[in-house]
This record gives sequence, structure tokens and C-alpha cells, in this order.
Amino acid sequence: MLAAQYIGNKNFNIVEGQALKPGAGEVRLNVGYVGICGTDMHIYHGVMDQRVNPPATIGHEISGVVAELGDGVTGFSIGDKVVVRPLDWCGECPTCNAGYTHICQNLKFMGIDSPGAFQNSWTVKSRTLHKLPANVDLQQGALIEPLSVACHDIRRSRLQAGEKVVVLGGGPIGQLVAAVAKSVGAEVLVSEPNESRRAFATEKLGVSVVNPIDTDLAKFVDEWTETKGADVVFEVSGVKPAIDAMTQIAGRRGRIVMVAIHAQAPEIDLFQFFWKELELLGARVYEAADFDWAVELISSGKIDVRPFISSVNELKDIGKAFAGMDNNPTGMKALVSCGAE
Amino acid sequence: MLAAQYIGNKNFNIVEGQALKPGAGEVRLNVGYVGICGTDMHIYHGVMDQRVNPPATIGHEISGVVAELGDGVTGFSIGDKVVVRPLDWCGECPTCNAGYTHICQNLKFMGIDSPGAFQNSWTVKSRTLHKLPANVDLQQGALIEPLSVACHDIRRSRLQAGEKVVVLGGGPIGQLVAAVAKSVGAEVLVSEPNESRRAFATEKLGVSVVNPIDTDLAKFVDEWTETKGADVVFEVSGVKPAIDAMTQIAGRRGRIVMVAIHAQAPEIDLFQFFWKELELLGARVYEAADFDWAVELISSGKIDVRPFISSVNELKDIGKAFAGMDNNPTGMKALVSCGAE
Repeated sequence: MLAAQYIGNKNFNIVEGQALKPGAGEVRLNVGYVGICGTDMHIYHGVMDQRVNPPATIGHEISGVVAELGDGVTGFSIGDKVVVRPLDWCGECPTCNAGYTHICQNLKFMGIDSPGAFQNSWTVKSRTLHKLPANVDLQQGALIEPLSVACHDIRRSRLQAGEKVVVLGGGPIGQLVAAVAKSVGAEVLVSEPNESRRAFATEKLGVSVVNPIDTDLAKFVDEWTETKGADVVFEVSGVKPAIDAMTQIAGRRGRIVMVAIHAQAPEIDLFQFFWKELELLGARVYEAADFDWAVELISSGKIDVRPFISSVNELKDIGKAFAGMDNNPTGMKALVSCGAE
Repeated sequence: MLAAQYIGNKNFNIVEGQALKPGAGEVRLNVGYVGICGTDMHIYHGVMDQRVNPPATIGHEISGVVAELGDGVTGFSIGDKVVVRPLDWCGECPTCNAGYTHICQNLKFMGIDSPGAFQNSWTVKSRTLHKLPANVDLQQGALIEPLSVACHDIRRSRLQAGEKVVVLGGGPIGQLVAAVAKSVGAEVLVSEPNESRRAFATEKLGVSVVNPIDTDLAKFVDEWTETKGADVVFEVSGVKPAIDAMTQIAGRRGRIVMVAIHAQAPEIDLFQFFWKELELLGARVYEAADFDWAVELISSGKIDVRPFISSVNELKDIGKAFAGMDNNPTGMKALVSCGAE
């Protein structure tokens, strides 16, 4: 079998890999499709070399087919279409004991902290698997992981039908957040400077858009909400102007969900938190319920993820797949085909 | 009747005032005791002159006795002991319509934006009144307003019995937050540099204390919580080191309640919000339920507010009362006696 190895500095090798026999509680998958995540792009740019320790096989947005069962695995059969929730938690820390295994104190993220899915075969713990229904194919399946991120963000926000939502940033995750928010019955506005991304939100999702560069966002939201302010704001952009905007556009008792990763500590207008009794909610990855919801959203037809697929390349062309996403705001999700159909 | 007028620059005049006949829906009170709030101290220092527009009668932590009823007032009788929830909301904005009158878009704070209680007689809307039970006297009653602030903070935090709480700052509100948290069954740690305030927390409230100047607070909380981190953090200090500490000491899924007013926008470690899925909750003043709870806490004996009373001065000596609280970390609550007993 073949495996892609990230070797540093935007380069991959394709090497002959070893299909790992599943141990107790493990399952070997024939990998179907693997999406390229923003984090994979960071790795590609070399900024996470210390954590991934190249040469390393990365990739974690995966669909596949069950190929081999380890001892004691129940609930899965050879040939089942599945997706992987790529979290490896300890099960013993206070956070796991409290039921929040997704933010385990010793969490390992599969495909970053341990080998990932850009290969023909991947062996994982069966507890990470979710089955795909018959009407969801493996290309759609590769979108379940990023869609689950959006489902988690929406659940954190306690979004209700009829509420007004502003999504700051129209990249892949921002668009998926907008799609899930709309599926819940919210009115959605995406703030995004890039024209093609605004067009995506309008044409593919049917939500409202605004360009925060040429429009006064605070004034726009004030009018859009008839002075009430947004019920929920999702900060998915990672840029400072969005940090300034989020406290302005959130209405009284508004919830702000922090989806983007701000590595620097930005200045935040805490006075607005006091004055409007705002709420800031950090959100990280997903829980099992988010994967279940994401599967249901696709299976039921409530969300069509096909428009998010910008390109599909063979595993041997993984370098081309990454290069095609590099500084490409029009690309939403690049898939790498790893063999199983 | 007499009224104190703040005339600017730490000065008050005592003037002959006019007892206002209550209009429809209003009640005239004979004022009992009025506490000096941190906001009153800010006014005293002249930093809020634009808002209060001196000469002005301030004061909003008040107990009193019903002296005269306006047309249409029901539920109150002459002689009732009452306290005032000093909020004047519009009842028409989207926030009022959503039930959050305490953060009304057009909120006026009585005693700051309109005349206050440092006088013998105060006429207010009956909707602001809460009755005191027979076993709560007017001195205790003057503590209901600040205790209601603490009740509101605790309700915002969704605090549960058995949870571990860190209160950053041991001033009057921090101590009251600690007292209410303890009454709920939480384990409470107050972080406070001032020795006399730490002694107050230990001796009067029976909670744990730490000096963040000579102790590594993050390490201390890590050990205190056996690596779990605090379930709830109340930021009541208003200083930057507390902003840095709050994201360090909160555990995964920890809630941070922003009680202090940070007029400057401080740098905040947003990465911790993502990594630990933290929650930041702004809290402002109080709702009717907080006053009801505060009355019950005193009436039932669950919280003894008498130790908070540092001094009692006559209305004519209001200048002495304010001067005694100026830069006095050992003082908790100064009361001004305005006549009614």
C-alpha cells in the first residue's frame, strides 16, 4: 500500500507503507477520501514541524470502508462505510471523567500527534468510528469532520430558530457554520471581504453577505437587526478587526462563539461584556453528538456538502492538491482520493 | 427635609430639599440607610461629573419606609420596610421586550442618571420596590443592593454545590460574591493582596484565601483543584494581572464571570478560550429575582451582612463617611443614616 509522507517545507513523498493489523478494539480501514484542513495547510507551511515531527503521514478528514476487525470490536462489519472522529483521549483525567473527552487534558489529535489518513490503509480505535448511511457516499463522508466542527460551534451557541446570526469569515468552516445555522432556522449574515467567498455564501447556501471592508459592519448589523444587535456571532476569521467587530455587533445577552484560533492575545473590549452582558464561548473540535448530527444533516438532505468540494486528486498527486489550496480563497475543500470507493 | 448634594471635587452640601409628592405608580419613602458604593466613590473623585451633572443628590444602596402612596399603587402600605432596585427601564426596547429590563437599551441608573437617596425622603416608582421581612432591619436592608449584585453574578455563573470557585479581588463585592458562593455549597478561594481583606474573608466568611503577590496563583489553584482548574472564576478586581490569571486558573469548560469594569480593552489569552472551551460571562447589576434571593439569604440567616458595615454616619456627616472610605482597603461598607428607623 502507499502512504503520503510530509517531509517538510511544502513537500511530500509517496512511500510504500505497511498496512497495520488492527489490535484489540481497533479497526483497519481502506481509506476513501481525505480532505485538506486549514491545519494541514499550516503543517504544509512548516509552522508545526515540531509537533508533527516529519517525515509524517498527516490527514484527519477521512471517510473509508471497514477492511479488518481487531479482537473485541462489535457494532461494525467488513464493508461498512465509516468516518473517523480523529480524537484520542485518555479516559482517565478529570475532564474525561466529566464527559468532555474532546478536550481531554492529554488529548492526542490523530493525523497531527499520531499518524494520519493520507494513505491507502489506516488502523484506528473503533471508538472513533461513525457509520455512514447508504445514501451518503465517501466523498460526502470526507466532509463530515469539518461539518462536525460547525455542528459543535452551533451547539455551543445554543442557537434557536429565528435568531439572527453573524458569521465573521467565509472560509470553509465559516461557510459550514452558516449552513448549519440556516438549517436550524436562523437568519444568517456572512461578513467576508473576498468576493468569491461571498458569492459562494449567496449562491450555494442562500444566506446574506456583507463586505466589511467597504461597509460599516456595526451600522449594517444595527439596521439589519433593528437596533437589537446579533443574537449570536461566530468569530471564524482569526483577524483583529473581527475581534473589534464582535463586541460591537452582538446585541444585549448576545453569544459570541470563538471558533478561530488567535495565537496572540488580542485586546478585547471587556466593557461591552459588562454593559451588554455578552457571553464568549470557546469551541474546540467536536463531540460524538456533533458527528451524529453532521451525518444526519447530509443524509436528510438538509445540507448539501457537494458544492464545498473544489478538487479531487489521487494520493500520488497530493502535492498538487495542497499547492492548489495554497493562498486560494476560491477553494473550499480539496479531497485526496486514497483508493476505496 | 434635608438632602446631600454632591457639588464636585470630593465636596457635599447639605441643603433643604423638597419631599416630592408621589405621582401615579410612585411611592414616597422615608429613607433609612444608604450605603456608599464604589461607583459613588468614583463620583466623589470627580471622574463622573459629566454624567451626574453636579450639584446632584446621589446614592442608590437604600433601605426605607413607605411614607406616601401615589395613585394606583398596590401591594404596599404606609409603614412597610422596603429596599429599592434602582433601575429605571423603558419597557419598550427589544431588550426589555425580551425580559432583560436590567440591561435595557435606555436604562437610567437611579442615583447616577437621576436623583438618588442621600436625603430624608425619596420618591420612586413602585415597580422598583422589594419588601423587607420583619426580621431584616433597615441597616441590613441597605446591604441588599450590593448583595443582589453578588446574587446576579452567581446566577450568571450557573454555580453548583461542590464546585470550586476563585474570586479575584476581595473588596466588598468580591467578598459578597464569596459569601453567596459559599451559601450555594461551593468551595471558595479569594485571591486578594490586601492582608486585612484576606483576614475578613477568613474570619467573617470562613472561606480560603491566597495572596497573589507572594504566591504563584496558577500553581496554587492547580494543586487546590488537583489539576482540574477552577470551575468558576469571578474577576472582581479590575486589574490586568487578574485578566492574565483568569484564563490560566479556569479549568476546562470553566466559566469566568466578568464583574469588574475594565474601561480599557485589555489583552486576553483567547487561545485558552479555544483550548479549554472556556466561557466568559458579562454581568451587570441585577434582576428582580436577585433582590428576592438577597432578601431571603439575609432573612434566613444564610448570610450575615452585619460584619460588612464598617461605619454609620448621619446624613449631615456624609463628607466624613466618604472621606473614611477613601483609599481605605479595610473599610467594607459605610452607611449613611437618613432618618427612618
